[in-house]
Amino acid sequence: MTYAGGMTSHTLYWSSNSCSLASHLVMQHVGADFNAVRVNFAKAEQRSPQYLALNPKGRVPVLVTPRGILTETPAILHYVAQLHPQAGLAPLDDPFALAQLQAFNSYLCSTVHVHHAHRVRGERWSDDPAVVEALKIKVTQNMHDSFAYIEQAYLQTGPYVMGEALSTGDFYLFTLSTWLAGDGVDIRTLPKAYAHQQRMLQLPAVQQVVALHATPVA
Amino acid sequence: MTYAGGMTSHTLYWSSNSCSLASHLVMQHVGADFNAVRVNFAKAEQRSPQYLALNPKGRVPVLVTPRGILTETPAILHYVAQLHPQAGLAPLDDPFALAQLQAFNSYLCSTVHVHHAHRVRGERWSDDPAVVEALKIKVTQNMHDSFAYIEQAYLQTGPYVMGEALSTGDFYLFTLSTWLAGDGVDIRTLPKAYAHQQRMLQLPAVQQVVALHATPVA
Repeated sequence: MTYAGGMTSHTLYWSSNSCSLASHLVMQHVGADFNAVRVNFAKAEQRSPQYLALNPKGRVPVLVTPRGILTETPAILHYVAQLHPQAGLAPLDDPFALAQLQAFNSYLCSTVHVHHAHRVRGERWSDDPAVVEALKIKVTQNMHDSFAYIEQAYLQTGPYVMGEALSTGDFYLFTLSTWLAGDGVDIRTLPKAYAHQQRMLQLPAVQQVVALHATPVA
Repeated sequence: MTYAGGMTSHTLYWSSNSCSLASHLVMQHVGADFNAVRVNFAKAEQRSPQYLALNPKGRVPVLVTPRGILTETPAILHYVAQLHPQAGLAPLDDPFALAQLQAFNSYLCSTVHVHHAHRVRGERWSDDPAVVEALKIKVTQNMHDSFAYIEQAYLQTGPYVMGEALSTGDFYLFTLSTWLAGDGVDIRTLPKAYAHQQRMLQLPAVQQVVALHATPVA
C-alpha cells in the first residue's frame, strides 16, 4: 500500500547532530512533500511527556505517517525509497543487492553509530561518571577503524556505497561522516571517505538540509 | 533477481549463543535447502585468516550466496523472506507494515543486542579491564527495560510482534530472549515476552535449530 499523495501528510521529527539527518536528507532528495519539526535536545524536548507519547524511546528520527509512526533510520530510509521508486535509492527488485544495501545500513546503525554514542551517550551503558568518561577514550580509534573498513569494503569500485548507483546508504554514510571531527578523526586521513563526503555535499538536497540543521535553535 | 533453486548453494556460518541463531531459525522455518557451517568462537575461529578472508568483520552470521556474501542479521532475514515469499515472514508489498517490521529488527540490532554485548564484548569499547568489567553492571537493567518496552509496544495485541502474522521479527526476538538468563533477567517476570518465547518453542524449526546450537562443539 502506498499513498496517492506521496509523503504529503507525513511529518519528520529531527534534531541537529543526530542520525535524523539521514532521513531528512533522503526525503528532501526524493522531492517528498512533508513537514519537518525540530526537536531541541539541549532543552531535553525528547524527554517531554508530549514527545514520549509520540515515541516512548525518546529519540529521533520519528516519521509520522497516515497509518502511525515509524522510527529507526534504516526502516525509514527503506520506506522512503519504496514510496519514491522513481528516485532509485534502493534496488527494490533485486533481493541480493537490496540485502547488501540493508547490511550496510544495519552496520552503520548497530556498529558505527554505537561507537560514536560512546562519546556522547555513555550514560546508556553505565551510571558511573568515571566509566562514562572512560568510554570516550576508544571512540576515535573505533570510528577511524569503521570508516577504514567502509573504504575498503564499499568505496573501492565506484563513487557510491553501492558502486555506480546513489542509494540511501550514501546519505546515511554522509550523516555519520559529519560526526568524525567531533570524534577526533580527521576525515582527510581517509581519502575515499573524504571524497565521498565532498561528493555528497554537491547535491542540492544535502546543501539545503545541512544548512537547516546548522542553524541555531531559536 | 531470485534463484530458481531457492537457497540451494547457500551456506550459513553460525556459532552458538550468537545472533546467527535468528538467520538459522528463519532459514529452517521456510524450508530452505542450505548448508550450515559452525564457527567455534571458543577457539577464536572467527579471527582465523580463512574466516577473515570471508568476512573481514570477524563476526557471524555470514550467508554465502551465489553472488557473494551477506552479513548483518536484519539484512539476511529480509533476504530470506524475499526469496521465500510463500512463507509470509515479511509484509513485502506493504511499505508501512514492512517499515514497522524493519524498525523492530533495527531496534533489536542497534539497541538490544548492543546492551547484551556490554556484558560479553565490552572490549569493543574499552581497552581498560576495569571499565570492561564495569560495563557489565547495567546490562540486567537495560535488557529488562528493552524487553519491557517490547512487551508494551509490540506484544499487546496479538501472539506475534506484528500482531497476528508470524514474521522474521519473532525469530529475532526469540534469539535475543535466549540471552536474558545470562544477562540476569528472569524472563518469567516479563509475562508477554515469556509467552512469546514459549510460543516460538512450539515451532518444529525452532526446536530443531535450538537443539543443534546447544550441542557441544566437537
